[in-house]
Amino acid sequence: MGTTGGGRRVGRPRAAQRPDSGLEPRAELLLAAAELFTTRGYAATSTRAVAERAGMRQASMYHYVSGKEELLAELLESTVTPSLAYARELLADDTVPAEVRLWRLCRTDVELLCAGPHNLGALYLLPEVRTERFAGFHAVRAELKDAYRQLIAATPAGGLLAKSELELRTDLVFGLIEGVILVHRSEPERPARAFADATADAALRITGG
Amino acid sequence: MGTTGGGRRVGRPRAAQRPDSGLEPRAELLLAAAELFTTRGYAATSTRAVAERAGMRQASMYHYVSGKEELLAELLESTVTPSLAYARELLADDTVPAEVRLWRLCRTDVELLCAGPHNLGALYLLPEVRTERFAGFHAVRAELKDAYRQLIAATPAGGLLAKSELELRTDLVFGLIEGVILVHRSEPERPARAFADATADAALRITGG
Repeated sequence: MGTTGGGRRVGRPRAAQRPDSGLEPRAELLLAAAELFTTRGYAATSTRAVAERAGMRQASMYHYVSGKEELLAELLESTVTPSLAYARELLADDTVPAEVRLWRLCRTDVELLCAGPHNLGALYLLPEVRTERFAGFHAVRAELKDAYRQLIAATPAGGLLAKSELELRTDLVFGLIEGVILVHRSEPERPARAFADATADAALRITGG
Repeated sequence: MGTTGGGRRVGRPRAAQRPDSGLEPRAELLLAAAELFTTRGYAATSTRAVAERAGMRQASMYHYVSGKEELLAELLESTVTPSLAYARELLADDTVPAEVRLWRLCRTDVELLCAGPHNLGALYLLPEVRTERFAGFHAVRAELKDAYRQLIAATPAGGLLAKSELELRTDLVFGLIEGVILVHRSEPERPARAFADATADAALRITGG
């Protein structure tokens, strides 16, 4: 067993990568960046600190990522893309009532925002995220918000709303869902499922009526 | 006029304070810190940069504040204390129905969070804010949340909720209100009043039923 493990490492010489982490180097870097950006702060974290935390030398890190900004961009997008993929599925499936699909999207999105050991949503408010470098994140986030808008518009109550009122309700629902980032920050121990269900119920109450 | 103005400045020698700003030095420092912390980031802003932005030397700054942390603590608390003062007034006035008082608190709180040229709520998610140094902010924020809980409990629908359900609804309403920080960040140009009214309506929908 020890020989096999040792043999594997000899066969794949990769400087100071942590043994037995089971992660690819890029995933290891993302995990290290998630931890350091949320606990020490983005500006206060050097690329070198990320590399060290991931168990590799700074020079090796540049084989896998271009730098800190790329890691931040990918972490931000990872908080949106799974919900966006699910939203696209839901939009395509009109055999299910829109309010049920909206409820499911809210629940899944909340669970995603509360998932993982680090509250990545806290990174949304970094001043750096306003810059053009993060246009990809803003684009997927806008697309997710548009999916919320379409599902709200497809509900019986949403279908009756004037355009400006539909925009307002969409902002409120989207704000409620993203507001979970702040609630989760204060109470990280709460079971995500019950809170996700309650948030989805609340989103439907905001939408209809 | 020129002589009077010049005479006033000679009478109150204050190193490099910006002339005619009309602000006290401490207020000038808070304004500079609000701008720099939200646009450049807290970790990336030096005390020296704050002093310079406020038009004074770093050494003079220490006459007014102990440093960057004190400025951050005061900025954070300033996003809560006016709403908390209003919440205390509302709690004391039981001649007005609880749902009306809750609605007013929501509206005022949203307007406060959207007020001012800088989105100070974005500072809530800084990793530094978790530390003991900011216990004062966490205490006033918890007190404000408790005022929401009491007002929700005093509404006809809230009075029927089990304790755990009351906690959940309070978290949802508080999350909706603070979620405004994220919505406002994306759409800073929107008129605050209409959005504040709509958010207060949504909070009542979450509470009751």
